[in-house]
Amino acid sequence: MSFETFSLTIENYVAQVVFNRPERANALNQKAWQEMKAIFEELDENEDVRVIILRGNGRHFCAGIDLELLMQVAQSAQKCEGRKRENLRRQVLDLQAPINAIEQCSKPVLAAIHGGCIGGGVDIVSACDMRYCTHDAFFTIKEIDMGMVADLGTLQRLPKIIPSGIAREMAYTGRNVSGQEAERIGLTNRSFVDADTMLAEVMNIAQVIAAKSPLSIRGTKAILNHSRDHSVADGLEYMATWNAAMLLSDDLTEAFQAKMQKRDALFR
Amino acid sequence: MSFETFSLTIENYVAQVVFNRPERANALNQKAWQEMKAIFEELDENEDVRVIILRGNGRHFCAGIDLELLMQVAQSAQKCEGRKRENLRRQVLDLQAPINAIEQCSKPVLAAIHGGCIGGGVDIVSACDMRYCTHDAFFTIKEIDMGMVADLGTLQRLPKIIPSGIAREMAYTGRNVSGQEAERIGLTNRSFVDADTMLAEVMNIAQVIAAKSPLSIRGTKAILNHSRDHSVADGLEYMATWNAAMLLSDDLTEAFQAKMQKRDALFR
Amino acid sequence: MSFETFSLTIENYVAQVVFNRPERANALNQKAWQEMKAIFEELDENEDVRVIILRGNGRHFCAGIDLELLMQVAQSAQKCEGRKRENLRRQVLDLQAPINAIEQCSKPVLAAIHGGCIGGGVDIVSACDMRYCTHDAFFTIKEIDMGMVADLGTLQRLPKIIPSGIAREMAYTGRNVSGQEAERIGLTNRSFVDADTMLAEVMNIAQVIAAKSPLSIRGTKAILNHSRDHSVADGLEYMATWNAAMLLSDDLTEAFQAKMQKRDALFR
Amino acid sequence: MSFETFSLTIENYVAQVVFNRPERANALNQKAWQEMKAIFEELDENEDVRVIILRGNGRHFCAGIDLELLMQVAQSAQKCEGRKRENLRRQVLDLQAPINAIEQCSKPVLAAIHGGCIGGGVDIVSACDMRYCTHDAFFTIKEIDMGMVADLGTLQRLPKIIPSGIAREMAYTGRNVSGQEAERIGLTNRSFVDADTMLAEVMNIAQVIAAKSPLSIRGTKAILNHSRDHSVADGLEYMATWNAAMLLSDDLTEAFQAKMQKRDALFR
Amino acid sequence: MSFETFSLTIENYVAQVVFNRPERANALNQKAWQEMKAIFEELDENEDVRVIILRGNGRHFCAGIDLELLMQVAQSAQKCEGRKRENLRRQVLDLQAPINAIEQCSKPVLAAIHGGCIGGGVDIVSACDMRYCTHDAFFTIKEIDMGMVADLGTLQRLPKIIPSGIAREMAYTGRNVSGQEAERIGLTNRSFVDADTMLAEVMNIAQVIAAKSPLSIRGTKAILNHSRDHSVADGLEYMATWNAAMLLSDDLTEAFQAKMQKRDALFR
Amino acid sequence: MSFETFSLTIENYVAQVVFNRPERANALNQKAWQEMKAIFEELDENEDVRVIILRGNGRHFCAGIDLELLMQVAQSAQKCEGRKRENLRRQVLDLQAPINAIEQCSKPVLAAIHGGCIGGGVDIVSACDMRYCTHDAFFTIKEIDMGMVADLGTLQRLPKIIPSGIAREMAYTGRNVSGQEAERIGLTNRSFVDADTMLAEVMNIAQVIAAKSPLSIRGTKAILNHSRDHSVADGLEYMATWNAAMLLSDDLTEAFQAKMQKRDALFR
Repeated sequence: MSFETFSLTIENYVAQVVFNRPERANALNQKAWQEMKAIFEELDENEDVRVIILRGNGRHFCAGIDLELLMQVAQSAQKCEGRKRENLRRQVLDLQAPINAIEQCSKPVLAAIHGGCIGGGVDIVSACDMRYCTHDAFFTIKEIDMGMVADLGTLQRLPKIIPSGIAREMAYTGRNVSGQEAERIGLTNRSFVDADTMLAEVMNIAQVIAAKSPLSIRGTKAILNHSRDHSVADGLEYMATWNAAMLLSDDLTEAFQAKMQKRDALFR
Repeated sequence: MSFETFSLTIENYVAQVVFNRPERANALNQKAWQEMKAIFEELDENEDVRVIILRGNGRHFCAGIDLELLMQVAQSAQKCEGRKRENLRRQVLDLQAPINAIEQCSKPVLAAIHGGCIGGGVDIVSACDMRYCTHDAFFTIKEIDMGMVADLGTLQRLPKIIPSGIAREMAYTGRNVSGQEAERIGLTNRSFVDADTMLAEVMNIAQVIAAKSPLSIRGTKAILNHSRDHSVADGLEYMATWNAAMLLSDDLTEAFQAKMQKRDALFR
Repeated sequence: MSFETFSLTIENYVAQVVFNRPERANALNQKAWQEMKAIFEELDENEDVRVIILRGNGRHFCAGIDLELLMQVAQSAQKCEGRKRENLRRQVLDLQAPINAIEQCSKPVLAAIHGGCIGGGVDIVSACDMRYCTHDAFFTIKEIDMGMVADLGTLQRLPKIIPSGIAREMAYTGRNVSGQEAERIGLTNRSFVDADTMLAEVMNIAQVIAAKSPLSIRGTKAILNHSRDHSVADGLEYMATWNAAMLLSDDLTEAFQAKMQKRDALFR
Repeated sequence: MSFETFSLTIENYVAQVVFNRPERANALNQKAWQEMKAIFEELDENEDVRVIILRGNGRHFCAGIDLELLMQVAQSAQKCEGRKRENLRRQVLDLQAPINAIEQCSKPVLAAIHGGCIGGGVDIVSACDMRYCTHDAFFTIKEIDMGMVADLGTLQRLPKIIPSGIAREMAYTGRNVSGQEAERIGLTNRSFVDADTMLAEVMNIAQVIAAKSPLSIRGTKAILNHSRDHSVADGLEYMATWNAAMLLSDDLTEAFQAKMQKRDALFR
Repeated sequence: MSFETFSLTIENYVAQVVFNRPERANALNQKAWQEMKAIFEELDENEDVRVIILRGNGRHFCAGIDLELLMQVAQSAQKCEGRKRENLRRQVLDLQAPINAIEQCSKPVLAAIHGGCIGGGVDIVSACDMRYCTHDAFFTIKEIDMGMVADLGTLQRLPKIIPSGIAREMAYTGRNVSGQEAERIGLTNRSFVDADTMLAEVMNIAQVIAAKSPLSIRGTKAILNHSRDHSVADGLEYMATWNAAMLLSDDLTEAFQAKMQKRDALFR
Repeated sequence: MSFETFSLTIENYVAQVVFNRPERANALNQKAWQEMKAIFEELDENEDVRVIILRGNGRHFCAGIDLELLMQVAQSAQKCEGRKRENLRRQVLDLQAPINAIEQCSKPVLAAIHGGCIGGGVDIVSACDMRYCTHDAFFTIKEIDMGMVADLGTLQRLPKIIPSGIAREMAYTGRNVSGQEAERIGLTNRSFVDADTMLAEVMNIAQVIAAKSPLSIRGTKAILNHSRDHSVADGLEYMATWNAAMLLSDDLTEAFQAKMQKRDALFR
């Protein structure tokens, strides 16, 4: 597969998805949204991939939705006011879909963020499993400065990641949150001195995950997604039913045998 | 409008709502609950207001429900035990209503807290959008020391703001949480050396918010409220429907034009 | 009551439940799961108990589910593949039940953790009200290394306690979280230099709680449990109905009288 | 109290609320919506009222929202497209509120329907506790013929009252459902040959209800409302908490004593 | 097993649970509630049972809760008003539990109702899978005449079984619903001329069910229970996870082979 | 578009989707499931379609899932037991998807059923908006006879359409429900003497719907779908937001003008 707005490499079960419009600070045009959805749906199925790193080429992680695309969405040939807004609703749902594809992808997605993570960039990293950043990274809910309500997932997911008071301050003021603050408030798991250091460590983490039972990693992600949106009681019942299906596996056997034989488990 | 237990000023789109019974540490009597509800319902509609600061006059932010009022609630002329408790249920709902009015007010409410924030005071700040405090502030879930379960929202809202282990410790022990600890656990966004410093900075933040698109600020608050209590999937669909209605606006146009013309946007 | 795998002492309204298989790092065999359920159901009813401390004897807090028991669960005499998994589902539910008993126990449960808190140990402390630890404590979601999805509550409860990004990292990598990191991310309320210091302070906190109105402590826990899994609006209505029943009590009267008489309240 | 668009009589604990614009087929203008809300909020509190009958004066029950009011809602002086729709959303919520007031009124509301029950009329009766009609009654979801989606509650409440297939047919086709069909599909509890017969029987039912324990009737309605929108497990827990507060009452005592003394209970 | 207030027979995989206090119209005393819970928990596990018929000995199905027990619940030695109600809440939950045991029993429960089904009797049949009755049966929500709100499940379950308007009329008026009306409104699946005819036909249905795959019958009941309380989307996902575990079974194989061999399937 | 297993015609805004494997009683093979999904996604977008009729060619409506496909699903090359069931879960979700496409299609779908509607056929019609049938139609939840739990939506949707007691009887016994019974229990809106009569009348209804405002019909379906799975309060708020976007339209204007000019409205 080859893409216009992304580069994609797969090695040792780790996929690297890289925003690749550095000359536009990785702003996402129509093509990029389509490709992002296609990529994560493909990686979901790809047996050579167990974990995914999402990062940006150039000086910034991602500048969010491309302004031209936004203007296009805001304009419409449709003359009926009702139909115009029916279309608009579909367009918003269509722009949400590639971000949902990250969350629904069965493998963990690790965002490695340097430079700006702006507007739609925040929507995107909110849908990733974990976030890591450099000290010089900054996070901005830019939509408020465009005279609009951020509508691609930030307002739904971010307050379930960081303290709600900070999430609201970010959403109302559009202020920058630096990499070190991001770590302190739990927006990222860690911040690093520079991009190379970050990438090396994120790669380490990815390889640790890639060495685990792939079946169990997929199951863990599915269950974590389910848990966020359900009561604990509902979650526990779902969990029991899930493991009724998935617990008994070659991976469980391999893990036991490895333990008995005091060697590392090797999952296919 | 003039009030007995509050002072209210509105300037440059920023309303300041000030608890004003300093001689009683701003404890809330019957009158205060009524006025609080009236004030936030009025500010919700008032077009000259885009953001609200809530603070206390005197040495403390708010000492919570006035003991006399609490005793009144606990007593009852009603002789039928069932009806007595039916009344009691209504009274609790009636006391919750002014606090809900803060949350349902369409504009962001910033609590600026110095000195004691006690009992009902914690219920109140938990319903605000953001909280800021001084180092000398302290937060106490005092109800446990009155032989009662805190029933005006603290137990519902606080564990969705701060780590649940800390929320439970506060609720079970009634211990004071200092301003600096409050910042560390995410109860407040920041703590400041003194009230003047705090107020100056909170005013800065308020003015930043007041300069944004009022329509988008209101929309952002409505969506953030909705998101807290719904699954992400439900939230995304609601969001798309919301922006189908509200995205296309004079504020969006002004923001675009300002950007093109490289000037600050000016929202009416 | 006497137990094979636990020791239990009750003094001054504080129960200490102690994992007591130090030679197995307090791994939980079949007997231990049964006894844990029985203990927390008994303490729920026991009027001499107002608060519970859960800790481990020996070098570790708890090593999680005993491997032999896990192997037993994974094997089955049942030849029908469907019935085998129907049984498996029941077994998972049966193993979840003792942990649920901690949460459903009407009194606060404080986990005091030193050494390893591994696998099932994390499931268990996630169901406690508060967690405290030593610097040398470590927390590990070990299930991923066994080729399985953690199915006893960690994935349901932990992400509602600590930042979701960290919870996911722990679940995917199985890495150790140290006592000091645990405090920083809100997994524990505090970390202490050693077990004695910890136990002394946790005992202090327990005694503070034991001196409060027992009726109100039980009510507060019930409401906090309810709030986690319901919308704020639902929670407020439930709260009002709860206090319609429970507010008027001897404890409320005692608290008022003590306040008037400027003495400590003494709850029976 | 006196009203322009309704007549209201209260006798023997039974209130009769009568749409009273017969010359306009009881179409609801702005005044009528305001009065409807005021009436049901007043009856909620009025101790002389235990049950309410809602019916129409003249040839029809209710023709729904007045077309002039609808046109007014559809027009707007507001030039900003976003604010126009923000206002529109509020107006719809404001029109829903009087109908919600019927549902939230603590006493049962019995709709007695003859002639046309059209558009907003269907929204209204869907919020009543029970519905009775004459053979010549007809029910029409008229909004579809006005080029709009029925937005005052019919689409939310009706499919929880009648079979969903019929509800959808009514909503898509706008066809009339006759009184006898209404009975058959469960839209009304019974249909009667004429309005006098209906009214006599509905009055009988109302008097039966008025003779029951008022506290228990109010509790039953509150619980039935709660049950519709919650899981059975949630409902049962709420129920137990409710009766913890309300079960022990003078009415329970009176009922027991009356039973012992083999006489009718007389509730105050 | 032998019981004081029930008779229990098991034959050809069909259990008959019979209320057996005919001299008290099968009113349920403390013993009966305990035994009901024990019986359904036992039948849940018993491999010789695939389907259960619940019926009454004597002239009536069940007269509901025994008045003496109700008076006992209503009285209390507890002097603290708060603790009295805390106890009361537990007692209600304890009385709900045996009825929940019917619903949670993994095998279908068919109620065969003749004569009176009164008060608690309605709570009980509402928790059964299907209901059948004689023409002379009658159903009464008697609690309203005792000055109380029915609190054992009728108000939670019945409106999800019959049209809500009828459910409310029954709850507010306490009127009798006859066997034939019960069939018409869907409260029972069919009504029969007399008890013998009913029992013969209910036995036929039970035997049909007993001949099906027991694993699939249990799964179907579990899923139907789940579906009632969840959205369709949630239900579908749960369903897929369930069948991932349970679809592949000896019963599926047997059904296929029987079909190929054009013989009846015989499930063990 | 042309299909192997369906015929599709579009005329006067009415699409007819016809199962077209009469020689196999319209059993659904792999191809049919794929085509069904493609068709309803296409009709969702197609502006020439306002309403859809779903029916069967030959003697039966639909015999459900093709046995060969079911066997294929039940078998698997996958040797790891965990992965086998992970695949199985996906396959069930994939088979549910074409049926969900009917529900999510923005236009009403009317099922016109004659002859057998069996197994998967019941799953399918449960996802349609309305159902109509002939007297000779019969409905069978056949899965129970295949030793499996019906997993494509019947158990989730049917009990929200017909009385739950009947739904459970159908699911446990696999018995046939005739066309006339189907009408009586609300499974179909009406039953007709023969297929021609049915089709003529269903076509009439379809044409009535096709003549309404297409925008409003789509909105009504979206809202009805939403309402089923949400509380009334949630539904009302969503409704208000929806109409904030969609109310003002050319269709509303046309409806008003037509009314003023006393002519039929003509929607584009």
